[in-house]
Amino acid sequence: MPSRMSSLWRSLPAYQIYGANTNVGKTIMSTILLKAHARKYPSQNTWYLKPVSTGPLEEADDRHISYFAPKTQTRCLYQFDEAVSPHIAARSSKPLSDISIQEQVLAHLSSCATTEAGLLLLETAGGVHSPTPSGSSQADLFRPLRLPVCLVADHHLGGISATISAFESLHIRGYDLEVVCQFKDSMYQNHEYLSSYFEKKGILSLSLPPPPEKAETIEEDREVMAEYYEKMSALEQVEETLDHLIHKNSSRIQYLEEMSEKAHKTIWYPFTQHRDISPSTIMAIDSAHGDFFQTYSTPLPDPPSTSNPSNPSNTSSPTSEPKDENFLTPTFDGSASWWTQGLGHASSSLTLASAYASGRYGHVMFAGTIHEPALSLAEDLLRTVNNPRLTRCFYSDNGSTGMEVAIKMALSAASTRYGWATDGKEMGIIGLKGSYHGDTIGAMDASEPSTFNERVHWYKGRGHWFDFPQVKLKKGEWVVESPEVMEEEFGKTTKFESLGDIFDIQARLKSRSARLYKSHIEDTLDRLVRKEGRKFGALVMEPVILGAGGMLFADPLFQHLLASTIRSSSHLFTPSDEPSTDSENIWQSLPIIHDEVFTGLYRLGRSSSSSFIKTHPDISVHAKLLTGGLVPLCATLASESIYEAFLGNEKADALLHGHSYTAHAVGCQVAGESLRELNALDSGGEWNSFKTDWNSPSPSTSTSTGQNDPVWSVWSKSFVETLSMSEEVESVIALGSVLAINLQDEHAGYSSTAATGLQKKLLKGGERFKIHNRVLGNVLYLMASQTSRPETLKSIERLLMECLS
Amino acid sequence: MPSRMSSLWRSLPAYQIYGANTNVGKTIMSTILLKAHARKYPSQNTWYLKPVSTGPLEEADDRHISYFAPKTQTRCLYQFDEAVSPHIAARSSKPLSDISIQEQVLAHLSSCATTEAGLLLLETAGGVHSPTPSGSSQADLFRPLRLPVCLVADHHLGGISATISAFESLHIRGYDLEVVCQFKDSMYQNHEYLSSYFEKKGILSLSLPPPPEKAETIEEDREVMAEYYEKMSALEQVEETLDHLIHKNSSRIQYLEEMSEKAHKTIWYPFTQHRDISPSTIMAIDSAHGDFFQTYSTPLPDPPSTSNPSNPSNTSSPTSEPKDENFLTPTFDGSASWWTQGLGHASSSLTLASAYASGRYGHVMFAGTIHEPALSLAEDLLRTVNNPRLTRCFYSDNGSTGMEVAIKMALSAASTRYGWATDGKEMGIIGLKGSYHGDTIGAMDASEPSTFNERVHWYKGRGHWFDFPQVKLKKGEWVVESPEVMEEEFGKTTKFESLGDIFDIQARLKSRSARLYKSHIEDTLDRLVRKEGRKFGALVMEPVILGAGGMLFADPLFQHLLASTIRSSSHLFTPSDEPSTDSENIWQSLPIIHDEVFTGLYRLGRSSSSSFIKTHPDISVHAKLLTGGLVPLCATLASESIYEAFLGNEKADALLHGHSYTAHAVGCQVAGESLRELNALDSGGEWNSFKTDWNSPSPSTSTSTGQNDPVWSVWSKSFVETLSMSEEVESVIALGSVLAINLQDEHAGYSSTAATGLQKKLLKGGERFKIHNRVLGNVLYLMASQTSRPETLKSIERLLMECLS
Repeated sequence: MPSRMSSLWRSLPAYQIYGANTNVGKTIMSTILLKAHARKYPSQNTWYLKPVSTGPLEEADDRHISYFAPKTQTRCLYQFDEAVSPHIAARSSKPLSDISIQEQVLAHLSSCATTEAGLLLLETAGGVHSPTPSGSSQADLFRPLRLPVCLVADHHLGGISATISAFESLHIRGYDLEVVCQFKDSMYQNHEYLSSYFEKKGILSLSLPPPPEKAETIEEDREVMAEYYEKMSALEQVEETLDHLIHKNSSRIQYLEEMSEKAHKTIWYPFTQHRDISPSTIMAIDSAHGDFFQTYSTPLPDPPSTSNPSNPSNTSSPTSEPKDENFLTPTFDGSASWWTQGLGHASSSLTLASAYASGRYGHVMFAGTIHEPALSLAEDLLRTVNNPRLTRCFYSDNGSTGMEVAIKMALSAASTRYGWATDGKEMGIIGLKGSYHGDTIGAMDASEPSTFNERVHWYKGRGHWFDFPQVKLKKGEWVVESPEVMEEEFGKTTKFESLGDIFDIQARLKSRSARLYKSHIEDTLDRLVRKEGRKFGALVMEPVILGAGGMLFADPLFQHLLASTIRSSSHLFTPSDEPSTDSENIWQSLPIIHDEVFTGLYRLGRSSSSSFIKTHPDISVHAKLLTGGLVPLCATLASESIYEAFLGNEKADALLHGHSYTAHAVGCQVAGESLRELNALDSGGEWNSFKTDWNSPSPSTSTSTGQNDPVWSVWSKSFVETLSMSEEVESVIALGSVLAINLQDEHAGYSSTAATGLQKKLLKGGERFKIHNRVLGNVLYLMASQTSRPETLKSIERLLMECLS
Repeated sequence: MPSRMSSLWRSLPAYQIYGANTNVGKTIMSTILLKAHARKYPSQNTWYLKPVSTGPLEEADDRHISYFAPKTQTRCLYQFDEAVSPHIAARSSKPLSDISIQEQVLAHLSSCATTEAGLLLLETAGGVHSPTPSGSSQADLFRPLRLPVCLVADHHLGGISATISAFESLHIRGYDLEVVCQFKDSMYQNHEYLSSYFEKKGILSLSLPPPPEKAETIEEDREVMAEYYEKMSALEQVEETLDHLIHKNSSRIQYLEEMSEKAHKTIWYPFTQHRDISPSTIMAIDSAHGDFFQTYSTPLPDPPSTSNPSNPSNTSSPTSEPKDENFLTPTFDGSASWWTQGLGHASSSLTLASAYASGRYGHVMFAGTIHEPALSLAEDLLRTVNNPRLTRCFYSDNGSTGMEVAIKMALSAASTRYGWATDGKEMGIIGLKGSYHGDTIGAMDASEPSTFNERVHWYKGRGHWFDFPQVKLKKGEWVVESPEVMEEEFGKTTKFESLGDIFDIQARLKSRSARLYKSHIEDTLDRLVRKEGRKFGALVMEPVILGAGGMLFADPLFQHLLASTIRSSSHLFTPSDEPSTDSENIWQSLPIIHDEVFTGLYRLGRSSSSSFIKTHPDISVHAKLLTGGLVPLCATLASESIYEAFLGNEKADALLHGHSYTAHAVGCQVAGESLRELNALDSGGEWNSFKTDWNSPSPSTSTSTGQNDPVWSVWSKSFVETLSMSEEVESVIALGSVLAINLQDEHAGYSSTAATGLQKKLLKGGERFKIHNRVLGNVLYLMASQTSRPETLKSIERLLMECLS
């Protein structure tokens, strides 16, 4: 798998040799280093790997190495005779995917690491962006392994530019350049300029005399080259370079070893009881790519005797016991890094978007100014969420600040309309039990008291929170479970043929449930407002799934009716002053805020999760996935009628909220790029196989789901059904890239520990990778990105079933 | 000046021709395009500019153009005979700075734009990163002008890589690539791969047959080339490319013209009364570099007759009246983009740091994990602020969230020690009048009621705010002014010889002021705590300057004594339970929080502004300049004794705060790089001339300032003194890169409009640039970055004096 790779061995410093251009002497430099290594460490091995080679076999690089550095074990994976770029040379043979090259490279590295100590050089083809057989670029092909780099500079005229640009292309892909190898040229003196350039960046240069001119005969040429290699490989500075490479490999390992200890002393972690953690429980992340972290492999705490012999995939096969340990393990980012990842880690396109904005603007202030990334993101986002009410975009830094902005908007709009401003009675919000909207005090105040906030001194729950019916897959059946308060009238559970049926709001509006929900909501509102005299300024909901509250899947019909019932209850809030609603885009009764921070922008499979509950909110808040998972940014979208409540003659009438980095260009540019890519995945049918899986008639029912917009998940339907049958599992939910497993536990809730057993098993992982995952009390959830590969998902599904059985 | 440049004319599409390598045919492509333009638009002009040329004169590029495209007006600014890189060729001549080249290029462009319409091509030397005569790179040299780019691809073997890397080096510097020009090579077929590569990015490719082989004689060669050019310049696709270039220039102007209108419809601005703005007051920013925005030049609202003839620098000289208008104006970022900028906009080093982290990690989740950028930033930051109490780093997203974190830390620590948790009585904070700590509700609650928060529904000021003596430069004299509450005892003002004397806390501790301050503080605390029974959980201060409150310069002695008096008043808070303070790093009486979001990290000239008031806080908060001004990030630093208050047996005992992008790798890497650069500026003596200016004996006093650590500003001492003498000015403050001008106004405060007149004058600007600036009521402030050029500062000082006179 492209991202499921990692390679870092103590005994095997492995470097990739990149060229600043083609024909700059990558093979010659490799020969010198390998020969020097063989001379200095005669008892060790040297390996040379050329994954893809083009040109006549007799001139192949690995042959050159074998001849001049004969102690080296050489290997070439693919040889094409034509002396052209690999993507052209490979045209006539069968397609060669990046993945298969990556897997063979990793297998070769692993096999070398399991023999003797030594040095391995992997020589790339052409320049850093020369095409691979599949048409991708060298720098992208080898990125998942992230081997450190020796860059051979271009010593020709123009070579300074080529070398620096090549360095930049590697650097922005997260490669570590350790040595720049240069041939001196007395005319152009590139090496002088470049040595000083790279020295400022702390990168070592090795500058050597150029090889002799090509001699007239092959024999003569071999002779002069052999002499050259003898001389070069004995040079003191070559030895020093070699030691530098070996040292850098050890110091990388050492830093990884020490990081957790240092972090334990210096970092104060979010949402973490520090008494529960130790250096050994802090995961050191070397890098990340796609859906995977590359994490430092801490020695397994269990002694070998406790490993389960019935589950051989969890242990190394004894016949291949390595002499050395791979210090890195691919680890699936099972929480999508706290629900942020959409396009995978280290996406080149997001990096380039970010760097472009940084190079064009840095950050420019946003009060009274406008720049292209902020403007086009606002326009694109409004188009994407496709809610005719929403016309305005207010930027802030994260979901919590964006929710505070939304609440300030709504409360002011309501108090202005109803003349509550100076009344002295505090306005609350109407919400759902178990909701959570962020960690700043204002966002906290919109949630009912819970473990998250009970110890926070300035917190005060301000509002009323409805208990609500929940959707669950229990033992293979989709059900809606009533909350206790409704149980008597509704019965405990209602069964549905399919998940799609639950979302068929049009059909369900005629049901008994709809009538009961509506009257329950009306009665409650009447009690709160008329009888108790309470004042409210907004309805605040996460549509469909309440995330931090414990992945609670609300019945979409209930959410739909909560919104529509409030909107048609204007008599409760003002007997006469309600403005005419000629335009349906004017907010009615109370402004409705949708917190789509977690659920929006395709996390649940649709551009806006408001569409699931068929409600157009007056304000919606978008963050997390907004930037595809790279940097913090939030957009609070509002309707014109909310915005107009802040127009006034005084500055104090305005929304006096703003952060220094409001609409920072980097975030806006990255979000714009992410939105384009996600929209393209959607319209390009990238998720069609998931949609088909969830919407073909299931064995238990042959009726159609009656849905226009399909309801689907990246987690396969049969897997989710099987999972729900497990003894340890109370229920399961799956939607979009979210999977949440409610584990059997007498004491459910945030302080439950039922899920931690499964959490640890997943973290221990299987043969090929581990799964980093988070729990919320007795709920363990996994969240893929929107670009997770089906193979990866299948592997995770298998591992999860193994851990449960 | 390097950043004070801009160039965008409707009648003069101007492109820079970059090469993916040297010798890829930049001049040949230029010739084809210029010749095609002359053919298609015979009545227009064509210009060719080669700023720096190397190699024999007779082979010079401009001669080639003159010969083959004879209608073109060619110009070469610098010609060196040696056919080597300009940095070597220029060694024997006198030093040639980037600035002088930039100025001549801009002058030439301007002169072309004032004649006829036409096309201008500026051909760079070598590849994108080929060195300039000064040793910088082409891409950096020409960045301030940010002309759009035609990139000539490399058609040789390896050229795909060279072309993509060259593109990336330009892209991450914020250049817009509009056309890739390619010579077809049937063997390597780079153009096929590259056309498809760039098409996906929306970039046009022009692929042409290669020029003929060099002929044997010069005459023959000229003949075949002339024939080639005739043929090429008549090709339909060359014409289309030309039209594309012309169209792109117009559409860039059109977009700039429309941006403000679109923004006015779509954006909801922070801290903005939208009734006060219109499309014409929204500044469209094309890009930024160094201290300058490049802003769209809106037509001046004043008719020419109202321009002031006594101030010719404000109007164009009538003899050089342009036929066309430059649509961009360099505009000094006078608020340092809301106090964030430290290293100037679009710093290459910050871009590269950001892109590296993006390429290595993207964002990786931070609960229970560690990555290098977060770890090393925490360590570096703790070292930099150099406060022995601080040991822990908690990350969040911006100053406001970081202050909420700090307050949560302090209140919990205090309530735990004093057993106040379940007491029911609300804890407040002790602060200073006029302080402001952010826009989220929790941060707002730490400020007393003001315009910022009076309309915010969930806001509640929780605390007591001391009025305090203020430092001002009034009519040439540094004074400390007592607040009303102290006037009777203290007298209205105390004069000082110099600003340095005010900061000589050691000496001033023996003064009468110190005794009076102390007893005032003691009496107040006693009243609040003993008599009124109020409970407090923290002292919260911005050290030295209260920013958003109106740039209020607090007497450092008062702030020092407020902290030390509270620390020695433990008897007030608990009669017996105070832990032994064997270690001075345990917090005493109340945790002290320093809000250094604005004042820290060299904004006021020192790494930590706490050093000015000689207090080691228990918690300090750092944001804004933390990332050098690129992306949002905040670090709340805390002492071990604060941290330990959250250790417990339950998760609920922990600090349950965290944001999705906590410690995002991009922000941490950028902040680490920024910190390194700022520390290097400090230790490298970059600011020595400012220090000398402020600490040499002034004409009015010959005594030494008695300071070890100098107190200084980037604004010159004599200018600040002169400024304070102005009739319109009530007083001035200057420290570090901050300058704040308190304008005479009967109704001072946030709703004052006294400063808006001066604000508008500065925004109208002078001959060479405008100044974008922000006001806080009757206070107009200017904030440079930490790398502003002395010449820029001098120009601003001159312009400011002109506007006041």
